[in-house]
Amino acid sequence: MDLVIHKYGGTSVADAEKIASVARKIGQVRDSGRSIVAVASAMGDTTDELIDLAHTVADEPDPRELDLLLSTGELVSCTLLTMALRSLGYDAITLSGFQAGIRTDDMYGKARIFSIDPARVQSELSDGKVVIVAGFQGITEDMDITTLGRGGSDTTAVALAAALNATRCDIYTDVDGIYTADPRIVPNARKLAEIGYEEMLELASYGAKMHPRSIELGEANDVPIYVASSFGDAPGTLIHRVEKVKELENRVKVTGIAYQANIAKITVRSLPDRPGIAAALFEPLAARGINVDTIVQNTSLERITDISFTVNRSDLAQAHAEVQALLSRLGGTEVISDPTLASVHVVGSGMQNTPGYASRMFRILAEGNINIDMITTSEIRISCIIKEDQVADAVRLLHEGFQLGEED
Amino acid sequence: MDLVIHKYGGTSVADAEKIASVARKIGQVRDSGRSIVAVASAMGDTTDELIDLAHTVADEPDPRELDLLLSTGELVSCTLLTMALRSLGYDAITLSGFQAGIRTDDMYGKARIFSIDPARVQSELSDGKVVIVAGFQGITEDMDITTLGRGGSDTTAVALAAALNATRCDIYTDVDGIYTADPRIVPNARKLAEIGYEEMLELASYGAKMHPRSIELGEANDVPIYVASSFGDAPGTLIHRVEKVKELENRVKVTGIAYQANIAKITVRSLPDRPGIAAALFEPLAARGINVDTIVQNTSLERITDISFTVNRSDLAQAHAEVQALLSRLGGTEVISDPTLASVHVVGSGMQNTPGYASRMFRILAEGNINIDMITTSEIRISCIIKEDQVADAVRLLHEGFQLGEED
Repeated sequence: MDLVIHKYGGTSVADAEKIASVARKIGQVRDSGRSIVAVASAMGDTTDELIDLAHTVADEPDPRELDLLLSTGELVSCTLLTMALRSLGYDAITLSGFQAGIRTDDMYGKARIFSIDPARVQSELSDGKVVIVAGFQGITEDMDITTLGRGGSDTTAVALAAALNATRCDIYTDVDGIYTADPRIVPNARKLAEIGYEEMLELASYGAKMHPRSIELGEANDVPIYVASSFGDAPGTLIHRVEKVKELENRVKVTGIAYQANIAKITVRSLPDRPGIAAALFEPLAARGINVDTIVQNTSLERITDISFTVNRSDLAQAHAEVQALLSRLGGTEVISDPTLASVHVVGSGMQNTPGYASRMFRILAEGNINIDMITTSEIRISCIIKEDQVADAVRLLHEGFQLGEED
Repeated sequence: MDLVIHKYGGTSVADAEKIASVARKIGQVRDSGRSIVAVASAMGDTTDELIDLAHTVADEPDPRELDLLLSTGELVSCTLLTMALRSLGYDAITLSGFQAGIRTDDMYGKARIFSIDPARVQSELSDGKVVIVAGFQGITEDMDITTLGRGGSDTTAVALAAALNATRCDIYTDVDGIYTADPRIVPNARKLAEIGYEEMLELASYGAKMHPRSIELGEANDVPIYVASSFGDAPGTLIHRVEKVKELENRVKVTGIAYQANIAKITVRSLPDRPGIAAALFEPLAARGINVDTIVQNTSLERITDISFTVNRSDLAQAHAEVQALLSRLGGTEVISDPTLASVHVVGSGMQNTPGYASRMFRILAEGNINIDMITTSEIRISCIIKEDQVADAVRLLHEGFQLGEED
């Protein structure tokens, strides 16, 4: 029988009324003769409230204990959803992460699924039941409860879709699909009917409200992921493997414009250009958990180099202090930083093999008097670091320049 | 190493401050060099709140789903208690019912423990950890989560004490021990330093704030149970096997006076006195889940009998209707009921073998102008059904008449 996976986020199950509405949506799938497994997150802000509660008894809650505590949030929302389904007359059952066979490593707070034993879920499905699975949680080999961290429930849903050979994984959320640009900035941004995994990964990494992790998992297992609104029936966006034939036809097509604010840049001046200098600079930052994004290095003829890199603005103070402390050992002359930057990204398949896209992006920005601070490119993305107060203009100009908007 | 089990009720872990206080109490045990396993209930009114939440989505929540929902209450209180212990510097770990190896049947809402696999608890104890176990819950052979119903956390604690060969099981609660009578009614009631299992069972069945179930389990496994207040260090009451030598010395001693209010009596008049008449009357009541307590049957010479029995007042309407419907089939003439009764009980070891205790009880009540409606006796108890508005007087008079009060 045709099997679909649904995933509902916290805002979709925030109260009894919304839970009843989700139950009706799930019931419609069942009515159509398909099997369904639905993954739900904790209700509304439950997870944050539980974290606050933990901090009332401990300054640094133990990660294992915190995971066991947080795992209760999804048990509450899921049992309520199952009860709502049953009161509508559908046979349904809740399975916790461990009952659903979701095995993880023991990295509490950010565990990774290493296998799913689908036996129990399959058995309940073949009994004709709707199976509601608690998202965001799993169990280690030692029978300890873990949580999967950011994007965890999406990951549960996509992993279950892969393990159960589901037709599709539907992610129902508070956005109704993937757009060519943020609709709050670009009013005529167009909702995409479909997008390839890789382009979606780039968009997800820079702004779209989805965690890259579940997209990667979907790509690795060839699970089509459909992103749509939990409220209403507007068509969403299908993330799937775009066929090669299609890619050839569309290879010069830009998919969308992404952006990210709150970026800071650190520049280390006049470093000796010798092997190992980058490692000596970035290893101490990594050891402190500081995530470095774009890195640019310019080498002069005198074997002297400047290295610039970006970090999240919230990490700037710590990163700056760290680099300052390293400066004399590295042999540099100065550390300077700029906290008011942003990034803007043109994403599309096969762009790097198609000359002219990068220059077109630069010209559009130049015509808007937007100065480019740093540039990086990948197979399917061209990224520019610019001043933060120009990022909305940049997104609008690029969206217009690449003709991504709705046709009138 | 000496191992003790502690159990803390919902009021003892109702907020962060109380949880910290319980953590200090547990820490003191650890400081004294003993191993400790502590069982905790859900915080304050959590269980009732979760039941209310379930009723917002379903009129009759599915029992399996409700148990999975309710099991989260103890996970929250226990992980918080463990975090509090760790922040005091004690190594501690929470185990859910299933992690602690508590296997039950599948009678959701009132599951019974059929075995405990203590391997995980033992392993954590031998690592030097304080083990906090979520009370009130277990797991079936099919890996479904169950709850144990009324008195469930006490039962978890006593069952663990038996499985782990603990020295003692301490039940910390909002009363500070077992008294010769309810101190709210009898101000000079005396706290008992010790009591036998059987007498405690009688007291627990009729008013003392403890569920008979955990006492039975303690008796069957010879686990000494110590009942004391979570707040303060006043000595409590030890429930244990009173040695035979001691019993002989004390055999004419009354242990305490118990009572129960909210009793209703139903009388079926003029039934034919034939075999099977009692079964025909009580089987349909049992099938509806109506608990019948005292039963008295008087047979006349004309092979006509009246049967009277007591039920909880809350069951009266249903029970009366049920008996009324049976009346013509049973061959009786009339069903009458009295909703305003109570019971008063004199409890003590070996009373039935000691003439004079029953008559002394009846005389004390008669001198107080208290009419006795029904009488039943057991090995260690004499019970009278009386008018509810006289029950406080009856308890006071009996406590005084049997000289149970504190000496001045």
